Amino acid sequence: MTNREFLTEYVSAFTHSLVHLGVKNAVVSPGSRSTPLAYACMKQEGLKVYRQIDERSAAYFALGLAKASGAPVMLLCTSGTAAANYFPAIVEAYYARVPLIVVTADRPPELRDVGAPQAINQINLFGSHVKWSVDMPMPEQENRLDFLGRHLHRSVASAKTEPKGPVHINVPFREPLRIDFDQNYESHGEIVHFEAEHSLSSAAENFLQEILAQPKGLFVMGEMTEKLPDEFWKFIQKLQWPVLADPLSNVRTNIDPSCKELIIDSYDALLKNESFKEAMVPDMVVRVGPQPVSKPLSLYLTAIKPETYVVIDESPMLRDAQSVVTHHIQASAESLWRMPIEANPETDYRMKWAKASEIYWQVVERHCNDEKDEGVLAKLFFDELEGNDLVVGSSMPIRDVDTFFKATERDIRIFANRGANGIDGVVSTAFGVQAAGNRPTYLFIGDLSFLHDMNGLIASKMQATDLTVVIMNNDGGGIFSYLPQSQEERHFEELFGTPTGLTFGDAAKMYNAEYAAVETKEQLVEALRSEKQKQVKIIEVFTDRQENVVVHRKLWEQLNEELLKQWM
Amino acid sequence: MTNREFLTEYVSAFTHSLVHLGVKNAVVSPGSRSTPLAYACMKQEGLKVYRQIDERSAAYFALGLAKASGAPVMLLCTSGTAAANYFPAIVEAYYARVPLIVVTADRPPELRDVGAPQAINQINLFGSHVKWSVDMPMPEQENRLDFLGRHLHRSVASAKTEPKGPVHINVPFREPLRIDFDQNYESHGEIVHFEAEHSLSSAAENFLQEILAQPKGLFVMGEMTEKLPDEFWKFIQKLQWPVLADPLSNVRTNIDPSCKELIIDSYDALLKNESFKEAMVPDMVVRVGPQPVSKPLSLYLTAIKPETYVVIDESPMLRDAQSVVTHHIQASAESLWRMPIEANPETDYRMKWAKASEIYWQVVERHCNDEKDEGVLAKLFFDELEGNDLVVGSSMPIRDVDTFFKATERDIRIFANRGANGIDGVVSTAFGVQAAGNRPTYLFIGDLSFLHDMNGLIASKMQATDLTVVIMNNDGGGIFSYLPQSQEERHFEELFGTPTGLTFGDAAKMYNAEYAAVETKEQLVEALRSEKQKQVKIIEVFTDRQENVVVHRKLWEQLNEELLKQWM
Repeated sequence: MTNREFLTEYVSAFTHSLVHLGVKNAVVSPGSRSTPLAYACMKQEGLKVYRQIDERSAAYFALGLAKASGAPVMLLCTSGTAAANYFPAIVEAYYARVPLIVVTADRPPELRDVGAPQAINQINLFGSHVKWSVDMPMPEQENRLDFLGRHLHRSVASAKTEPKGPVHINVPFREPLRIDFDQNYESHGEIVHFEAEHSLSSAAENFLQEILAQPKGLFVMGEMTEKLPDEFWKFIQKLQWPVLADPLSNVRTNIDPSCKELIIDSYDALLKNESFKEAMVPDMVVRVGPQPVSKPLSLYLTAIKPETYVVIDESPMLRDAQSVVTHHIQASAESLWRMPIEANPETDYRMKWAKASEIYWQVVERHCNDEKDEGVLAKLFFDELEGNDLVVGSSMPIRDVDTFFKATERDIRIFANRGANGIDGVVSTAFGVQAAGNRPTYLFIGDLSFLHDMNGLIASKMQATDLTVVIMNNDGGGIFSYLPQSQEERHFEELFGTPTGLTFGDAAKMYNAEYAAVETKEQLVEALRSEKQKQVKIIEVFTDRQENVVVHRKLWEQLNEELLKQWM
Repeated sequence: MTNREFLTEYVSAFTHSLVHLGVKNAVVSPGSRSTPLAYACMKQEGLKVYRQIDERSAAYFALGLAKASGAPVMLLCTSGTAAANYFPAIVEAYYARVPLIVVTADRPPELRDVGAPQAINQINLFGSHVKWSVDMPMPEQENRLDFLGRHLHRSVASAKTEPKGPVHINVPFREPLRIDFDQNYESHGEIVHFEAEHSLSSAAENFLQEILAQPKGLFVMGEMTEKLPDEFWKFIQKLQWPVLADPLSNVRTNIDPSCKELIIDSYDALLKNESFKEAMVPDMVVRVGPQPVSKPLSLYLTAIKPETYVVIDESPMLRDAQSVVTHHIQASAESLWRMPIEANPETDYRMKWAKASEIYWQVVERHCNDEKDEGVLAKLFFDELEGNDLVVGSSMPIRDVDTFFKATERDIRIFANRGANGIDGVVSTAFGVQAAGNRPTYLFIGDLSFLHDMNGLIASKMQATDLTVVIMNNDGGGIFSYLPQSQEERHFEELFGTPTGLTFGDAAKMYNAEYAAVETKEQLVEALRSEKQKQVKIIEVFTDRQENVVVHRKLWEQLNEELLKQWM
């Protein structure tokens, strides 16, 4: 076998193994050192190849694609700083538990640390933020290929094992880098894999059965990236506890109509009310998934410190920033709703939650008729969605969703990057989510976050897509107006508000996207309903940072009044 | 002292110490956790604060500023993926030996790895790509402040010690984050520091004196970020060796007129000619600085494997990718030109280099009259510069400079990111260089590289600047047409050419920059000479990737002919 034949064999076996292991998508950035694997990706049957010039955006695109599809996605880039650009998305994937197969091409050992161009130290490049990192042996004839399939198997199995996450495969190549396109490849006989299943131990099951039979419990649902099965709805129907549904839990959309009254989508607002909090102290709390977005909920659980606070989390890395959890059941969420439980009777406690929630939404309806700030426009937007995926930016947008997204039977999935809550990479994540779901997708994002990853739009020039971006442009960082920093006027705008004066009409032109500038409710509805002609539609909604804060506060006051009148 | 008073004292001492240690510039990105230090930066006398929303661009801006000013620059960001966005520029700074003081705000230990928002593992976040990394003790009264000045001293001293590079200071803060603006701060008595000097050992001096007295030597100058002193010009005048001047060596600009004939700015072209290479084998080679950009030079030195190949490099990490260097003198470049040497007589060898160089530039002149491809337009552009800094992108632009930038007495400094040769972050680097030199600055860059760091333009919305960007838009990656990949038609455009179809007129509008689209020589000159009205001028030069390759090859053929006629 010539070296070229061997190289061809090596990279063909590489992509063949990945596909065999369930990888269906690869995101490739242009570069020279990665040439052999890039070629192999292009000719690999069963592997869809996406391209992105900016590696930071590429990695966030892969993150969205992996998160929404539930399957690991391959990333490929050349050597040097290209690989370092992957880092932010890798950190997010690590904490958000998203499987990524990060492949970085490298120079051979003799070109490392000797001043060769584009050669950096890529060994363990991503430190503690990948689950496994391997520096592959050189693809040379002396190194037979038997290890290759095994190494890839370990990589993918590791990425897919709970807690899921990114793995890093560093692959050195020596020149020449060209492969033989016409060389045939037949499978080497890949390893057969039976995956582990996380199920409840019988001790955990006995314990839970006792807990879940209690009348005054709260069921908290954090982020769930997978669509909830019928068993879930049957489970909460039997449980008859109020289900506090984080916007990312998938419990606020596609709801089973018979469960409507169980779902509490208003707790972020209700738990700002002192009397309500006092009256509704639960006897026990059971949570599935990470901590919800809501700060009032976190503060509440910290304050009341429930005697029994159970968390079901498949990882030993229990998420409990306030140190209040008392029981950790290490198992998958699915194992909970597959568990047989007795049907509980309806309780006063749950009815009171439902009643308060009803009052909240009445107040919101009236508020939305009277006002026109960011929150009101956000609600209007959410009400228009149907048969869509929705990707939400950090800071204000995710809080707007928490406050204004009412539980609905409509078919919508909601995503956000909550592993590290960055404002970076969100545009690319949205394109990735769209590629996974392949249906009209919406991105709801602030102006700073949109600006941060404007390069995400490059995706629209390289592949078919269908994305509508709703930018809440309050010219700067809106979240800071809600934080203590806002009480100090000096340097506030320079350091926190950071107004750039930028608007995005020209960006839309540059990327051949539709564009609408919106200031009123009517304009927003019109922009949302107008038939989409292009790959990307950008709706820029101009709001006022100061006004948003004032109007938000008004809503909480109205709610307090109504709770006092109708509920206490 | 209250906690707030102590926090104020801590962050005031922090910025005060940095300024005492020679830090004059800070680049701050908006965020919450970094609030106390951001405030301290704003109120610190002697510290200029720049702001950038995108942390990746912020770090590359700091890199340009540190490189061109020769002094360490402070970076500050909040916790989470914000910090991970610094990574590409940190990698570049590490290999390019640029001093950066990277400060990342962090959550306190009890909020790490517990699922708290924006909390990631920031300990040793940048792995082996920083010179030192420290996780600071909490700013709490129990921890007295004595260590603070010492830790910062170690950080800055480490960043400034050869080989220079980035250091990482991780600073945890607990809420509340506000400081007292009106609290006075007086210095705690900072540590006094006497820096080491790298000088030649007498053994090295004796050795060099013998070597440098030889008649048939080549003197190779790699990248030098500092302006060359008079001693340098006197040194090469005495030496009378041909000086092969890399475009980043500062030897092609601000030249001493008496040294004109010594400077060889044409070796990249000449060393493509077989007869020339054969005729001009040197007896010895002395290099200062990293390996030059020129691939023909590297190939030549590898092929002839000089018996004596001396490199003066202040670092133990000798840059020698081809393993041909025979002597490593670990000392600063300055110590070489401060060394007394005897004046050598003029030699035939040097005259033959000078003659060939003259022929090269005659051929180029004629070529430039006849043609109008990327290289020709580049030369036209270089000839217009005077009293400017020039920042050059990787891949084709730096090679165009190597080929077409003729040595000149004009006052120009040339910069590029050659630590890892990335195409990322170059726009921001240019803004950083401009901020350091504070004179009209030019960026010469390809379309993919410009697109990669378009966010660098945000700088123009937040500070005074004066930048002209010349984009060579050949719709994709031009460099690949010169590599073996171009011989394989299949997937070439998808994987390497990667045309995006994007042009940058709308980007210019978005950032309120002047814009000119250019296709001819006349248009280019007009666009360059038209009076600059705004902070940023963008000149987009449209060229054809195919044509560029053909015309480049024509130039080499013409040179070969002329060398045969006039020189052999």
